[in-house]
Amino acid sequence: MISKNQLKLIRQLGQKKYRKQFNQYLVQGEKNVLELLNSPLKVNDVFATQSFIDNNQTSYPQTHFITADEEQLTKVSTLVSNNAAIAIIDMPSTVLPDENSLILALDGVSDPGNLGTIIRVADWYGIKHIVASTDSADPYNPKTISATMGSFVRVSVSQVELPEYLSTLNMPIYGAFLDGQSVHSTKFSGQGVLLMGSESHGIREQCAKLVSNKITIPAFGGAESLNVAMATGIILDNFKRQA
Amino acid sequence: MISKNQLKLIRQLGQKKYRKQFNQYLVQGEKNVLELLNSPLKVNDVFATQSFIDNNQTSYPQTHFITADEEQLTKVSTLVSNNAAIAIIDMPSTVLPDENSLILALDGVSDPGNLGTIIRVADWYGIKHIVASTDSADPYNPKTISATMGSFVRVSVSQVELPEYLSTLNMPIYGAFLDGQSVHSTKFSGQGVLLMGSESHGIREQCAKLVSNKITIPAFGGAESLNVAMATGIILDNFKRQA
Repeated sequence: MISKNQLKLIRQLGQKKYRKQFNQYLVQGEKNVLELLNSPLKVNDVFATQSFIDNNQTSYPQTHFITADEEQLTKVSTLVSNNAAIAIIDMPSTVLPDENSLILALDGVSDPGNLGTIIRVADWYGIKHIVASTDSADPYNPKTISATMGSFVRVSVSQVELPEYLSTLNMPIYGAFLDGQSVHSTKFSGQGVLLMGSESHGIREQCAKLVSNKITIPAFGGAESLNVAMATGIILDNFKRQA
Repeated sequence: MISKNQLKLIRQLGQKKYRKQFNQYLVQGEKNVLELLNSPLKVNDVFATQSFIDNNQTSYPQTHFITADEEQLTKVSTLVSNNAAIAIIDMPSTVLPDENSLILALDGVSDPGNLGTIIRVADWYGIKHIVASTDSADPYNPKTISATMGSFVRVSVSQVELPEYLSTLNMPIYGAFLDGQSVHSTKFSGQGVLLMGSESHGIREQCAKLVSNKITIPAFGGAESLNVAMATGIILDNFKRQA
């Protein structure tokens, strides 16, 4: 059974101010909790159905499992459906990206679902750290974590003062615009920053002026733009095919 | 004012059975309705705020606008927020893709949001028609239309008996699998079918056996898979860079 105090904590961690206060966040649903248990991240409590516990307790003997029924899990979950598990974990300390790699930077990407999808595709392309402007979506928002499909355990996101951070780097900054050089003909260096803006505002002036190479995904049809997560995935594929 | 009967019709068109019965569907929100008005598609009624009508009536003198307030529009809309307009339009007749082009085929892609995102990225890459298995998401589902961001006016989706349809084609069928040839080294022909399966089931046996070329997006990191819309966009980019 989930106690009243635990219920209260889970509900609170659905909100950013409590995540910040307690320095903890929620990981929900079978896929994400299993990825978490398989990762080196330290897990506090896992609230789960008896069948989830029966299937996993022997593999993870260090984990503190608390039995809950599906109804209780779904009720307390911030997701629409949650029939397996909720874990509470500590937020990691901030890690800035290794400067000998490809760095993904996000300017004002405020939708948690988009951020989660970006984390997932960054993980596919082997990126370990993302830097995001302070007004980007919260990396620990339950919707972000959910959309990563487990990739949150391998990719960290640091919120930084983005223009200041970018101005300290000594490497090419590739910025995605609608009027840059085609990514099909751009020669990418193995190191560098890929900077993506939001769909509504693009890359804002303070960051835009730091861009060394404006790049664009060539369009062949009528759509005006692509979703920022989609654009990130397509550009990462173009970077990596040359790397 | 929206009349009682009109209200009832709008509500009904949120459901597939009534869309089928009346052969009509809804287009909601400012961006999508404006794309619709700019398209050759025949529009029946447009329910819109006075300010939307004031801004657009002179540009679209043939359109039958009906004034509604934001509250009424949001209440009757199937979307979470809708502060501008709802249009009712007739479903087009089924068009099958031109066989001298790149054909996008979807097997069991059942999430309307994914289908809408696929329509949008297909439009970016100049694809005019998509064929989808009969159990794929309804192309006229309000969530599908919404996610297309206006691309529904340029890309049509036909639901077909997919294995039968594919078996009539005399062109290469590129199927996305996790263990195919890298799309970075595949030589794509200008014509052909790109066949995508759902995230949960992949391409099912009946279609899989018709595939001539198994292809894969190379992975560089830890994610097990990509969202089907993301994968479609990345593969289309690889097709088009060679075309």
